[in-house]
Amino acid sequence: MREAYPVLERFAYLNAGTFGPLAKATAEAMRDQLAVDEAEGRQGKQYFERMLALREDVRGKLAAVAGAAPELVALTSSTTEGCNIVLAGLRLEHDDEVVTSDEEHFGLIGALIASGARLRIGRPDELPGLVGPRTRLVALSHVSWVTGNRLPVEAFEGVPVLVDGAQAAGAIPVDATAFDYYTISAQKWLCGPDATGALVVREPDSLAIAAPSYFSQEAYDLSEGTFEPKAGAARFDTGWIPTASLAGLSAALDVHPADCYERAASATSRCRELLAERVELVTRPDQATLISFRHDDPPGLVERLAERDVIVRDIPKTDLVRVSCGYWTNDADLERLAAAP
Amino acid sequence: MREAYPVLERFAYLNAGTFGPLAKATAEAMRDQLAVDEAEGRQGKQYFERMLALREDVRGKLAAVAGAAPELVALTSSTTEGCNIVLAGLRLEHDDEVVTSDEEHFGLIGALIASGARLRIGRPDELPGLVGPRTRLVALSHVSWVTGNRLPVEAFEGVPVLVDGAQAAGAIPVDATAFDYYTISAQKWLCGPDATGALVVREPDSLAIAAPSYFSQEAYDLSEGTFEPKAGAARFDTGWIPTASLAGLSAALDVHPADCYERAASATSRCRELLAERVELVTRPDQATLISFRHDDPPGLVERLAERDVIVRDIPKTDLVRVSCGYWTNDADLERLAAAP
Repeated sequence: MREAYPVLERFAYLNAGTFGPLAKATAEAMRDQLAVDEAEGRQGKQYFERMLALREDVRGKLAAVAGAAPELVALTSSTTEGCNIVLAGLRLEHDDEVVTSDEEHFGLIGALIASGARLRIGRPDELPGLVGPRTRLVALSHVSWVTGNRLPVEAFEGVPVLVDGAQAAGAIPVDATAFDYYTISAQKWLCGPDATGALVVREPDSLAIAAPSYFSQEAYDLSEGTFEPKAGAARFDTGWIPTASLAGLSAALDVHPADCYERAASATSRCRELLAERVELVTRPDQATLISFRHDDPPGLVERLAERDVIVRDIPKTDLVRVSCGYWTNDADLERLAAAP
Repeated sequence: MREAYPVLERFAYLNAGTFGPLAKATAEAMRDQLAVDEAEGRQGKQYFERMLALREDVRGKLAAVAGAAPELVALTSSTTEGCNIVLAGLRLEHDDEVVTSDEEHFGLIGALIASGARLRIGRPDELPGLVGPRTRLVALSHVSWVTGNRLPVEAFEGVPVLVDGAQAAGAIPVDATAFDYYTISAQKWLCGPDATGALVVREPDSLAIAAPSYFSQEAYDLSEGTFEPKAGAARFDTGWIPTASLAGLSAALDVHPADCYERAASATSRCRELLAERVELVTRPDQATLISFRHDDPPGLVERLAERDVIVRDIPKTDLVRVSCGYWTNDADLERLAAAP
C-alpha cells in the first residue's frame, strides 16, 4: 500500500492535512493527459466528451466519500470556494446572525466576513448555546485544523448547518447528508491534485447561484435575463477543471483501500500514544487523524524535523505543531517523528 | 517558432480562441513540477516560497500583457471568475442597470444575470445609446467570441466599464488601464495551462471583496469580523493555483516573440483573404485574430476538417464556423483549411 506513494520512500510524510501524498497512479494519469494536451491539443469532440465524463466520474466518487447522491455534489476547487458559494448564495443581511467557532480556517472565515452578517463566535462547546432567533446559519468545521478535535456538528436542530469538511472528508467516515452544506478538499486526505474539491448541497433548489459558471446552466436567455440551472448541485460547479486534474483525481480516489478509515484511526492512535509520553497533546483521544501538541518553538521544531525528512507543520499564531496520520502512515514514520531532537 | 509547439507538427491548429497550443517548454515545466510533487511531496518552506514567487512572476508577466502595473492584477482561474468578482463586488440592486451586448459569452452573461441588475441589451453599435442615469456598469467583450469583431469598448465615458478580454489579451495589444475592469483568459491566446487567467482592476480599493480567498488577506480578526485586504488587486486573487500551472504559465509567457501581435495580424489577414473567396465572412477587415464565416452545416464542417487534422470550431445556435489565427499560424495551415471539402 505504501508503494503506491513515492513520497513515502524517503519521507516520514505527516502533513496530509495540508496536502496528501500523490500516488504514482495519480501522477501517471496527469502526465498521460498532459502528453495528450501537448501533442494533440486541448481540442475535439472526444476531448470534451472525455472531460465531461471525467467530471461525472469524480462527482460520483466524491459523492461516495461523502455518503451522498451524486446529484447533491458540486465540483469546486477548494473548501474556500465551497464556503463562498454557500455564504454568497444565502444573501444574508446585516441583522442576520451566523454562529461559528473560534477555531475556523480563513477559508470559512473569509466567506463569513464577506457575507456582512453578524458573527456570533464561541468555543466549539459553546456553539449550541449561541443559536438564537436571528441565526440563519451555523458554520463550523467537522474536525478542527488547529486542535484536531471534532466539533459538535450534530448538535444543531432547526437551523441550517454548513460544515467545513476539509479535515474530515477522506480522513473519517462522513455522512454529508446530515448537514445542509458540506465542503470537501480533495487535495488533502483524498490525495487528489491541487485545487480539487466539492460541495455537497442537500437542497440545491433552495440556494441562489451567486457566481455561475458555464457548467451551472442547462440553457440561458440573455434577453429574458434568465438561465435555467442544471439539475441538482451541478449548478454550483465553479468552472473548468483541468482534464489532467480530473484524470488524476479519478485515479487518486481509486487508490484508497476499503479499510482506509480503520487503518488511519489506528495509525493516529499509535501516534498519540508515542507523543503523549513526550509532549502535551491538545487533541483528545479518538478524534480524527490530526494530532496537535504544544511546543515552545513550533517553527523551529518543524524545521529540525524537515532536515530529517519528517514532514509536519506548525499552526501560525499558536504554540502548536500538527501531525497528520493517514492509512499509509507506518510505525517507522512515527518513530522518526518521536525521535525528534 | 513553430517548433516550440508540438501540436503544430501534425495539426493545422486553428482554435486558440478555445485553448491555445501548449508549448514544449510549458508542458516541460509542468512535468518537472509534477515530478517534484510526486517524489518530494507538496510541502516545505521552499516549496511554498517558490509557489508564492511564481505567483508574483506570472502576475508581473500578465500585467505586462495588459499594459498595467502588477499591483492592479488579480490572479484568477478564468474570465468567468473575473466577471463574477466584479459583478458580485459591485453589489448591484434591482433598479440598477447594466448595459451589455447581444454577443456575449455565458462567462459574462451568468455574472450579469446573477447580479440581479436590470440588463439593457443591444447590438454592439447600439450600446453607447443605451447608457442612462441608472447605468452602473457597461459590460462587453473587447473582441466578440461569435463574430470576431471588435466592440466599441472605448465609446463610454463617465460610467464604469468591464471588458471581457478573453478573445483579446495575447491576441492584440491591450491597454487594460483604459477600463475599470479587464479580464484575461490565459489558456487561450497566451497558451497557458487550463484554468489560468487574471483580472485587472483599476481601483482595487473601490470594489468589495465578495468571495475572499486565503490570498485576499494580509491579516484577519475573527472576533472583530474583519480582515485587512492585501494591497492592490491581489486581494481579489481567487485561491490556490497548482504550482505546476504557475510554472507552466510562466514558461508559456516567455515563449511569445516580441512581434507576436504583428505576426498574428498578418496570419489573420492571409486567412481572411483565402476564405473571402470561398465563404461569406462576418468578421470585418482588421479586427483581431478570429475569423468567423457562415456555413449551412457548421458542426458537419468542423467534423470533416477534424478528420483532416484541421482544428476549428462552430458557434452553437448560429450558422458560424470560427477560425483562430495565432502568430504560429503559417500558410500551410491556412491552405489546409481552405482546401476543405
